[in-house]
Amino acid sequence: MARKLVYMSESLRIYIEKTLIHLGVPEADAQIVADVILAADLRGVDSHGIIRLHSYYTNGLLMKRINPLSPSRIVHETMTTATIDGEAGLGQVVSYKAMQTCIEKAKQTGVGMVAVRNSNHYGIAAYYAMMALQENMIGISFTNSQPLVAPTYGRTALLGTNPISVAVPAGTEKPYVLDMATSIVPIGRITVYQKAGKEIPVGWGIDPSGVPTSDPDAVLHGGALMPLGGIDLMRGYKGYGLALWVDIFCGVLSGAAFGPFVGHPTDPEKTNVGHYFAAMRIDAFRPVDDFKKDMDLLIQTLKNSPKAAGQDRIYIHGEKEFELEETHKTNGIPLMEEVVDMLKTSSKEVGVPFDLEPVAVL
Amino acid sequence: MARKLVYMSESLRIYIEKTLIHLGVPEADAQIVADVILAADLRGVDSHGIIRLHSYYTNGLLMKRINPLSPSRIVHETMTTATIDGEAGLGQVVSYKAMQTCIEKAKQTGVGMVAVRNSNHYGIAAYYAMMALQENMIGISFTNSQPLVAPTYGRTALLGTNPISVAVPAGTEKPYVLDMATSIVPIGRITVYQKAGKEIPVGWGIDPSGVPTSDPDAVLHGGALMPLGGIDLMRGYKGYGLALWVDIFCGVLSGAAFGPFVGHPTDPEKTNVGHYFAAMRIDAFRPVDDFKKDMDLLIQTLKNSPKAAGQDRIYIHGEKEFELEETHKTNGIPLMEEVVDMLKTSSKEVGVPFDLEPVAVL
Repeated sequence: MARKLVYMSESLRIYIEKTLIHLGVPEADAQIVADVILAADLRGVDSHGIIRLHSYYTNGLLMKRINPLSPSRIVHETMTTATIDGEAGLGQVVSYKAMQTCIEKAKQTGVGMVAVRNSNHYGIAAYYAMMALQENMIGISFTNSQPLVAPTYGRTALLGTNPISVAVPAGTEKPYVLDMATSIVPIGRITVYQKAGKEIPVGWGIDPSGVPTSDPDAVLHGGALMPLGGIDLMRGYKGYGLALWVDIFCGVLSGAAFGPFVGHPTDPEKTNVGHYFAAMRIDAFRPVDDFKKDMDLLIQTLKNSPKAAGQDRIYIHGEKEFELEETHKTNGIPLMEEVVDMLKTSSKEVGVPFDLEPVAVL
Repeated sequence: MARKLVYMSESLRIYIEKTLIHLGVPEADAQIVADVILAADLRGVDSHGIIRLHSYYTNGLLMKRINPLSPSRIVHETMTTATIDGEAGLGQVVSYKAMQTCIEKAKQTGVGMVAVRNSNHYGIAAYYAMMALQENMIGISFTNSQPLVAPTYGRTALLGTNPISVAVPAGTEKPYVLDMATSIVPIGRITVYQKAGKEIPVGWGIDPSGVPTSDPDAVLHGGALMPLGGIDLMRGYKGYGLALWVDIFCGVLSGAAFGPFVGHPTDPEKTNVGHYFAAMRIDAFRPVDDFKKDMDLLIQTLKNSPKAAGQDRIYIHGEKEFELEETHKTNGIPLMEEVVDMLKTSSKEVGVPFDLEPVAVL
């Protein structure tokens, strides 16, 4: 078993902020980016956490693909909507601003929606949707991403894993926080199987001829991920439809890149990623207390219902992540030793050494 | 092979309208209901077409569960939102009004959203989403429905097949019209396999102990449908999350029933179904012409991409339905003979005989 080194989130936060500030990012913006990155690690979404700091963000800054000043500007606006050009800045910074704009507009009118063009990888979708929670609003966050998923009956990766996040406050229960890629699995999951020399379940991906395969190499070399649902019999065209919905809202509505034209976050060229955000005031529909009581009842009804054979718990979306966040805040964030080694190497190139001492080794 | 009898949609329209008017529905409302029902048959969504006229609608009217006058009223309103009480009227009538309200609000502010409580089965979700298309708006339509789907790790049907519909205009290409149940298949699909004595694919449904099964009887008797994604390995919790999203927007946000409390459309008691609608003006984000050009490019990029082995066409959502609509408008709507027999029997009970002559027999 590979070792894991545990670091307190606040020490990782200081490291991330120092690194970004060193690369010309204003302090307030560095704080936003660090908070989004650490939200992923705290919530157990390791794939979008500090593991991406260098490959997605500092490399982009060093290559001058990402503008450290994130000089985004509103290119179109109504009382309920805005379109923001991210000006190739950090995805997290423009997205934070965009969701704040949604919330401000929702305060004024009931609903706010913002589409963002010319952005970069924004981290976990749920971060922005969840910004609405403390305002007694429902938050929505979509992003498109580099092509990895083939349309049903196709064989070319033309759509991103395009996640959907929806966050809804409850009363005594934890909020509902959906944050799902519209593919079955992320590409990293295929790589895990490949490295382990294991076959993947048929339905996760297709080979270069477009046929569902159990061979991870075939998916990674000329194949593609399948959309949620997978094979025809299981209605993969629905997942394809969801991925397309996200791309229309993020890419087409904003004027960003879409489909196969979205850049990879490690590319030297502009990615022109697009995002879509919305905030809806609950009291624009019904009293907040009534709404929260019904949310609690719905959640409790689901959780207290009889379990399937062999199962002892039914989850609400976001529940596992809230629990992990509690644990990780108290005990620290466990990072794989190879991730720590990577951080040490990359941090030397950047010029801000990663010299934190782990609080524990697992 | 069972015979099919073909009827022109306009003659079916007159029959549906006469039937509803006979049961006390005002003429303008009867026209709306007939149009929604026939949109299903024209688009090839037979399960939501004239086959449901009596079981879902005229029976409800005869039992006094559905109020023929559909006296809906706005119970809460802001400049962008409204909550409408359907007052146990016809689902189609209040939904048509709700989507019109979304469109009016979007004209004024950019965005309109309406949640509906105390409604009934509203037919195909896409009908209302598509009302936005001619206005150069994006339309969204969700509805909850009677419990048929179990949450992941559960074994009780607690959520409806809760469909999601999103309609987006394009330029020279047909609009994108997603209209998908958030279960893998509808319950009727299980019945088809049961009647044919065939096993269902593992993943479509669970048996009464919550275990995925190939036995349609087990699903129909004490089991449940599985959400999109199906078994754990294929990420069925995502479909469960989508079904829950729809229920929150339709049931909780509106103050309607939700989860297992939603009534079945053939029940004698009030169903208290909830819906959610939204309209977004495209020019609230970017110029309509630019948007449509990009929609065309995205659609063409997908459709013109290489096909999987054995496939000769990649579809956009709604495309098959637009083609069927053309065909059915010209050649008539084919109805299974048993559906026609059912119409004849039920129509006698209602008092408006179904005495149309088919234009063809297949």
